[in-house]
Amino acid sequence: MSHTRYTRLAQSLPASVPFVGPETQERARKTPFAARLGANECVFGPSPLAIKAMQEAVPDVWMYGDPESYDLRAALAAFHGTRMDNIVVGEGIDGLLGYLARLMIEPGDCVVTSDGAYPTFNYHVAGFGGVLHKVPYRDDHEDLAALIARAHDVDAKLIYFANPDNPMGTWYSGADIRAALDSLPQGCILVLDEAYVECAPAGVAAQVDPHDPRVITMRTFSKGYGMAGARVGYAIGAPDLIRSFDKIRNHFGMNRISQAGALAALADQAWLAQVTSEIETARARIGKIAADNGLKTLTSATNFVTIDCGADGIFAKAVLDGLIAQDIFVRMPFAEPQNRCIRISCGQKADIDLFAAALPKALDHARSD
Amino acid sequence: MSHTRYTRLAQSLPASVPFVGPETQERARKTPFAARLGANECVFGPSPLAIKAMQEAVPDVWMYGDPESYDLRAALAAFHGTRMDNIVVGEGIDGLLGYLARLMIEPGDCVVTSDGAYPTFNYHVAGFGGVLHKVPYRDDHEDLAALIARAHDVDAKLIYFANPDNPMGTWYSGADIRAALDSLPQGCILVLDEAYVECAPAGVAAQVDPHDPRVITMRTFSKGYGMAGARVGYAIGAPDLIRSFDKIRNHFGMNRISQAGALAALADQAWLAQVTSEIETARARIGKIAADNGLKTLTSATNFVTIDCGADGIFAKAVLDGLIAQDIFVRMPFAEPQNRCIRISCGQKADIDLFAAALPKALDHARSD
Repeated sequence: MSHTRYTRLAQSLPASVPFVGPETQERARKTPFAARLGANECVFGPSPLAIKAMQEAVPDVWMYGDPESYDLRAALAAFHGTRMDNIVVGEGIDGLLGYLARLMIEPGDCVVTSDGAYPTFNYHVAGFGGVLHKVPYRDDHEDLAALIARAHDVDAKLIYFANPDNPMGTWYSGADIRAALDSLPQGCILVLDEAYVECAPAGVAAQVDPHDPRVITMRTFSKGYGMAGARVGYAIGAPDLIRSFDKIRNHFGMNRISQAGALAALADQAWLAQVTSEIETARARIGKIAADNGLKTLTSATNFVTIDCGADGIFAKAVLDGLIAQDIFVRMPFAEPQNRCIRISCGQKADIDLFAAALPKALDHARSD
Repeated sequence: MSHTRYTRLAQSLPASVPFVGPETQERARKTPFAARLGANECVFGPSPLAIKAMQEAVPDVWMYGDPESYDLRAALAAFHGTRMDNIVVGEGIDGLLGYLARLMIEPGDCVVTSDGAYPTFNYHVAGFGGVLHKVPYRDDHEDLAALIARAHDVDAKLIYFANPDNPMGTWYSGADIRAALDSLPQGCILVLDEAYVECAPAGVAAQVDPHDPRVITMRTFSKGYGMAGARVGYAIGAPDLIRSFDKIRNHFGMNRISQAGALAALADQAWLAQVTSEIETARARIGKIAADNGLKTLTSATNFVTIDCGADGIFAKAVLDGLIAQDIFVRMPFAEPQNRCIRISCGQKADIDLFAAALPKALDHARSD
């Protein structure tokens, strides 16, 4: 036998995973990107106060972070009007989704998501042996009613639902989501990923009772707060569920610099408002560039704009490749028919200028294929 | 039924965990510690070049870190004379131990460790349903031959072995460890935790063939490199085992600032040499303070010194409490008879001065109990 006795589950998992960073592409291309508009990072960066807090925290990084993230959780509880025991802080939403899958999913357990939704969630569910049931988008929106209906059919333990959605940028009102909770199957938890909600208009964030055991809400400092590389996310939920993370999480896993940065970022809501205003401006400009090129965009409540390239996935992929060939890092949805689109993160003016210059050539390239 | 349907494993896990940070103690005491000598952090801090690299990386934290940690892995491979595919970077050794447990352990699988060794490893093994078999220390050393013998008895998948050891600070020569590999059972992997090895004399690091499938070596930037709060560890092992981490790890889990800091820290070996010299000085001084108080110390190859308080665990706990009451944060071993000791991390001169002043009173307090 081979020396290494992996678990049966580990043996069954695919060796290749969908996580390819822009740096990997840059190494393969042997040239850097000129505009980084593919990962829905916030090019406007973190609050200057958060930058200052992180730089000041650097010399103290010889100390482990507080395993309770107490100060940050206290601030988040005050911000959201919850108790501290409604909140767990983790290594980004990605890390928290992994912990949640581990707590809930054993081999054969069913989970419902949208076909083409967040691959990292799927990765974690599959990584614990869960069975994913994928519901098509409807009119480029996640189909909440159909997700819930499927959860009834398969006795799902979890439904993943991002609001606003990635990769389409579309959304439901928070009121619609609250209303839908009553139709969830018994024993099914709605994983409400609000990663982009800071970029959304009022009324999109679902004002869920934090003690409601039927839903766990995920938030992050990676998007609106501009700290993707700091890996700080948090989940809001019923204390029993939140406390269960303590059974399995990496207690000393939080970066001390990031804890300080997130605390300062949360306190600077004026910066967040300015960033979301810049994002709105960038969204409008991306929309205009698309229109100038005869393309439609989806109305977005996020820090990116999804452009309908007007044909099929092969055509959109050719447009994407044409942009990448011109050193513009962008990505596109995976699943039909959403893969007729490409997804452009909101950049600085200079980034969008580069995109504006590159798009016509990319379209010419695609049309000439 | 309860709304939340945890896995059977999650339901079975204890709600309370052994991870209590000094901040938690400070909040309970309502007063900060004056000297932080309990978590084996490196009070001498990271290289000034690493501090500079991290501070410069802060404004770029809007970008995710490279999911491959390519530059850091390339530098580590060059440093260790391995190939890049021998190395996986993760969120501290803690994070990597969790991934390893997940890859290898399913409920009922046996794992061998020393009674009183690293609790985080035990936590991860138990967290995946593994059965821990604990072997007593012998003469305050981990008992490598007995660990291997027990692994044969129980068909263990993993043996955990820290060299140098925590919490005792004792060690084996690397040559002894290499020689022991031939007596490992078929299908058993030695998890060689070298967290403290940068503080050890020449010959302690085991020069294992990185392609040897019988061992995985764990290293960290938390101890000698002084970056505990940055959460950067790495494992060296056979490519098949290293590649398997990609099936389950949090691909975008690495902090971008920490990646930059670790790269700069690794390049500044002169700083590491200076720090290890300071650690040697502190170890000698702690030894002298103990001797001045009539206590013996264990010879240490780490950044801490274990002091034998000369009686039982109750007495050592009273000494510990007496130090904490004087605002000195220290910890002690868990298991008998090692719990006759307390463990003092190497501090700056000012920290050790405080310890020197506090120890006689703590001993008086313990003796008067």
